[in-house]
Amino acid sequence: MSNSSTAVRTKRAFNFNAGPAALPVSVLERIREELLDYRGTGMSVMEMSHRSAEYEAINAAAEQNLRRLLGIPDDYAVIFLQGGGSMQFTMAPMNLGQAGKPIDVLHTGTWTAKAIGELKKGILHHIAASTEAEKFARLPRPEEIKLSADASYTHMCTNNTIEGTQWHEVPKSTAPIVADMSSDIASRPIDISKFGLIFAGAQKNLGPSGATIVIVRKDLAERADKNLPTLLQYRTHIKEKSLYHTPPTFAVYILGLVTEWIAAEGGVPGIEKRNEAKARLLYDTVDNSGGYYRCPVEESSRSLMNVVFRVAGGDEAVEKEFGTRATAAGLIGTPGHRSVGGMRISLYNAVGFDAVEALTSFMKEFQRTRG
Amino acid sequence: MSNSSTAVRTKRAFNFNAGPAALPVSVLERIREELLDYRGTGMSVMEMSHRSAEYEAINAAAEQNLRRLLGIPDDYAVIFLQGGGSMQFTMAPMNLGQAGKPIDVLHTGTWTAKAIGELKKGILHHIAASTEAEKFARLPRPEEIKLSADASYTHMCTNNTIEGTQWHEVPKSTAPIVADMSSDIASRPIDISKFGLIFAGAQKNLGPSGATIVIVRKDLAERADKNLPTLLQYRTHIKEKSLYHTPPTFAVYILGLVTEWIAAEGGVPGIEKRNEAKARLLYDTVDNSGGYYRCPVEESSRSLMNVVFRVAGGDEAVEKEFGTRATAAGLIGTPGHRSVGGMRISLYNAVGFDAVEALTSFMKEFQRTRG
Repeated sequence: MSNSSTAVRTKRAFNFNAGPAALPVSVLERIREELLDYRGTGMSVMEMSHRSAEYEAINAAAEQNLRRLLGIPDDYAVIFLQGGGSMQFTMAPMNLGQAGKPIDVLHTGTWTAKAIGELKKGILHHIAASTEAEKFARLPRPEEIKLSADASYTHMCTNNTIEGTQWHEVPKSTAPIVADMSSDIASRPIDISKFGLIFAGAQKNLGPSGATIVIVRKDLAERADKNLPTLLQYRTHIKEKSLYHTPPTFAVYILGLVTEWIAAEGGVPGIEKRNEAKARLLYDTVDNSGGYYRCPVEESSRSLMNVVFRVAGGDEAVEKEFGTRATAAGLIGTPGHRSVGGMRISLYNAVGFDAVEALTSFMKEFQRTRG
Repeated sequence: MSNSSTAVRTKRAFNFNAGPAALPVSVLERIREELLDYRGTGMSVMEMSHRSAEYEAINAAAEQNLRRLLGIPDDYAVIFLQGGGSMQFTMAPMNLGQAGKPIDVLHTGTWTAKAIGELKKGILHHIAASTEAEKFARLPRPEEIKLSADASYTHMCTNNTIEGTQWHEVPKSTAPIVADMSSDIASRPIDISKFGLIFAGAQKNLGPSGATIVIVRKDLAERADKNLPTLLQYRTHIKEKSLYHTPPTFAVYILGLVTEWIAAEGGVPGIEKRNEAKARLLYDTVDNSGGYYRCPVEESSRSLMNVVFRVAGGDEAVEKEFGTRATAAGLIGTPGHRSVGGMRISLYNAVGFDAVEALTSFMKEFQRTRG
């Protein structure tokens, strides 16, 4: 973290929220500085016309920064939409689904269940793999994946926030892969060319909620029926460079600032090193606790973004106390998702190593005094 | 405007943008003050979980403030969505359309044309009135409106930003009225009970872009097929109080601040008085210019929100110069929409009377030196 974060340390919490989540302090300071007068324009970014030269530059820079950071090839479009990842559960099949060809799904948790929920409304699909029987505590092994011969595409979620799992290899698929990358985009290098479409809400690794990043191979976007609602066609936004209608301008501006920050931190490879170090410290603390803390996820499937663990054998009263005492100690957002319980620590890009140090110290102290 | 606006006058432009548009200085100052630490939480609103008690309070306050300001009856739901007014051109017919019953449209300009564009994709509809033959320079008169006997609903746009027209009476309709109120919501008192559904992007009178307000009679929201995409059903968001999925949290927070500001300014009746005074000064300046400035809109249809006029008989070179010199004088956003030309001055809630005084002084000076 930068020196400026130290300066405001007394007022800032250690934020482990699952999303919306922590943002870099330097980005927040920049937003604050420019809030009443963006670079001499006499207005805030949120007061600007989305047709102004200033906003067009902000929009273009956010796209270009993402292209550079993620190494996005020219045959892919990058667009900023609204509606979060959830809207993509509808838009992806609408646009990329093909008559008579199933959509294959690798079912790995709550977020793929949501995608399946939309497909169940009359869209041909096939669960090509599922680890539901193991409570999603691991990802499918290659030999367990049974893809259709003629799928429109294969849907997957690269990181499962609630279950704490993350794919460390892109599964093989001859059909294009549509990846929900909401919770690990820009956290590690990826080979974009292995995907047909990537979508991600900005609110975990790239900015505030309200902007959704879609990276789509341009030829696939042309599959869509032109009679679909205009706003629900990717081609509309590709053609107009995310300016078909009023975009969420302030969220795109912040996304641009976060991409600048990532670049300054050594780009995605630099961020990945930090993310690995943060996760290592936390998993080591869990694994070396003599069983007091226990991560239910199989080691090869563990997420670097969301670390889940149980406390004292899953004693809910103790876990509740852990959350309460953590909050009192300025460690925010430690309880797990209400559907699974336990604890969940989100370690997105903007979470500093110092935050994980503070947390692991707290964990040792909690174990010593309560365990 | 508050004293604080005077203090920062030197850095702030007079902002006549059509949307996104000017925000109250006091609101921007509050955002700035709370940016790194929202009321002792140690984080920005944009870093908070949307499931936190703090954000739930922000979300609930924004709804309650709007209910109070607009006098929204209890049988109406108030929800915050994404996708702007444009998404409502799809959601309204999906949810409120009924098989075999046409959607009536009062066609008054660019925005109703967009709504019609979506209906043309296979949805039964009927143009119940249109002033296209008169280039939308006035609104339909009561006797010109030919409603269907069995319409699902009647679609209208209460204020036409591009054409500079505004309905000053709600037209009669036995079918529920769906009103695009994007550019005049909360600018004047309205009788909500005369509408079935009202939608509005926040970015003109109520906040930044990225949040869309929908006010819908609860029984009408139940018309929708439950097989529609989850996110495109109003009932999803009604049931979950706008928290079904991650909302545009920062935009909703600002919307809440703007509603507080409106309340402090005398509520919607107080804002209406200010809006009337601003529009009167500007229309008087146009009408008393000896024809140098000319508003093409019939007097009874003139908008208090968007004042359109031509300069020097519509001489495009002179109009271009007007825009350039206005910008140089710190008067931003005066050119009309590219589809119609001329000038357009948007006078949304947060535009101060001082801004209109500065503009009208400029107009007199421009006429004197260039006319």
